[in-house]
Amino acid sequence: MAIKLHDLAAAEDDRRFSPYCWRVKMALAHKGLEVEIIPWRFTDKEAIAFSGQASVPVLVDGDNTVHDSWEIARYLDAAYPDRPLLFSGEEAQTLAFFFKHWCERSVHPHIMRTVVMDLYNGLHEKDKPYFRASREKRFGKTLEDFGADQAGAIAALRAALDPLRPGLAEQPFVCGRAPGFADYILFGAFQWARSISPAKLLMPDDAVYAWRERLLDLHGGLARKAKGYPV
Amino acid sequence: MAIKLHDLAAAEDDRRFSPYCWRVKMALAHKGLEVEIIPWRFTDKEAIAFSGQASVPVLVDGDNTVHDSWEIARYLDAAYPDRPLLFSGEEAQTLAFFFKHWCERSVHPHIMRTVVMDLYNGLHEKDKPYFRASREKRFGKTLEDFGADQAGAIAALRAALDPLRPGLAEQPFVCGRAPGFADYILFGAFQWARSISPAKLLMPDDAVYAWRERLLDLHGGLARKAKGYPV
Repeated sequence: MAIKLHDLAAAEDDRRFSPYCWRVKMALAHKGLEVEIIPWRFTDKEAIAFSGQASVPVLVDGDNTVHDSWEIARYLDAAYPDRPLLFSGEEAQTLAFFFKHWCERSVHPHIMRTVVMDLYNGLHEKDKPYFRASREKRFGKTLEDFGADQAGAIAALRAALDPLRPGLAEQPFVCGRAPGFADYILFGAFQWARSISPAKLLMPDDAVYAWRERLLDLHGGLARKAKGYPV
Repeated sequence: MAIKLHDLAAAEDDRRFSPYCWRVKMALAHKGLEVEIIPWRFTDKEAIAFSGQASVPVLVDGDNTVHDSWEIARYLDAAYPDRPLLFSGEEAQTLAFFFKHWCERSVHPHIMRTVVMDLYNGLHEKDKPYFRASREKRFGKTLEDFGADQAGAIAALRAALDPLRPGLAEQPFVCGRAPGFADYILFGAFQWARSISPAKLLMPDDAVYAWRERLLDLHGGLARKAKGYPV
C-alpha cells in the first residue's frame, strides 16, 4: 500500500504551495518511495482530523500516521534505513535542525513578505477569510501593508542568504556533494514562492540560483514539473 | 615534538582574546593533542612571517604549517583520524561550514559592538594604533561610535541566537550529544568576549547560557581557567 501524503493545495488550478509539504515530497523522492498525494485546503479540517492535526503535511504509511515535516523526515530514515538517507548521521541531523530554524526565521519571513499578496489572490475562495484573519493576526498588520515593499523584501532575502554562499561556491548542495534534508528545507521555501508568485527572488549569477536549478532538476525534475512560475 | 600554536594575546596581563584561536585551542584539547602556545600580538608580523600569514592562528606541527582556524580543524582530523573527530563526516562538516559563516555574520558583529571599547582598552599600547585604524576603516566610524549602544548590541545578539535554542533545548551541544567543531566556532566568540569584557551577554535562564557553561567546563575547564571575566 503506497504512502499517502496530505498536501496543501491552492484553488482549482492545483498549485501546491506549502514549503513544508515540498520538503516531504522531495524527501520521499530522495528515498525512492511511491506516494499518493491527497490535495488538502486550509479549511478542510475534517479531512485530516483522524491525525489529530489541524494542518499538513500529514503522512500515512500503513498503520503509521506522522505529521510535521521534520518528524516525517526522521520517520522516513528510521523506517527505510536501507534507502538513501536524509541525514547521514546524528551530528548532521542536529546541524540540519539548526539549519531548519535558521531558515524559518531568516529566510521564510522575507519570502512571505515578497509573495503574500500573490499567495492570497491564488487561494481557494473558501480559504481566503481564514488566511487573511490568521496571518493579519500573526503579522500585526493587513496583508497589503505587510507585503507593501516587495523590492525591500527581495533585497533582505538576498542578504539573508549570505552564509550559504561560501559553501555553495565549493560544493553543489547545502549538504555537500549530495543533497540531504537541509537542502529540501531551504528548497521548500523557494518552491513555495515559485508556485504562487512571479517574483524574481534570485539573480542568475548567484550561487544560490545555481543551487536552486540543481534542486529543480533533482528526482526527474519533480519540482520543476509542478505548476508554478518560471524562476 | 609538540604542536606549536601562535595565539593572539592582549597586553602584559596575558588575556587571550581571539575567537579563532579559541576554536583551535578547544579543537586541540578535543583531540587530546599537546600544544605549545606562543603568545603573539597584532604588530608582531615578523614572528609569523615564516608562515606567509599576517595574522593568527598559525599552527606548526613538525613540517606542516597550517593557518586559518577552519583549515586547522580539517588538518587535525586528517592528520589524527584515530583521535576524537571534530567533524563526524562530510555532511556534518559541510553544515558546520554554513554554521561558521552564520556565526561570523550574525553573532560576531553584535559581540564586537558590545566589547569593542573593552577590547581596545585592554590591548598592548603598541597594538592600539593598528587596531583603531584597521577597525575604524572596517566599521566606517570611530570605535566609540561603533560601540556606543552596548545594551542594543546585547539585545541584538540574544535575538540572533534564536535558531540555536530549539536544538539546545533537546541536546547538550550544537553538534548533538557530544561537542564538535561547530560548538567551538560559536564558543570562540563567547570566550573572546569573556576574556576582555565584563559585559553580561546572556541571561542565566537561557539555553545558550547553559550550553556555554558546558563548554567552559570541557577538557578540564580549559576555557574557564583562562584569564577573563566571570560570565
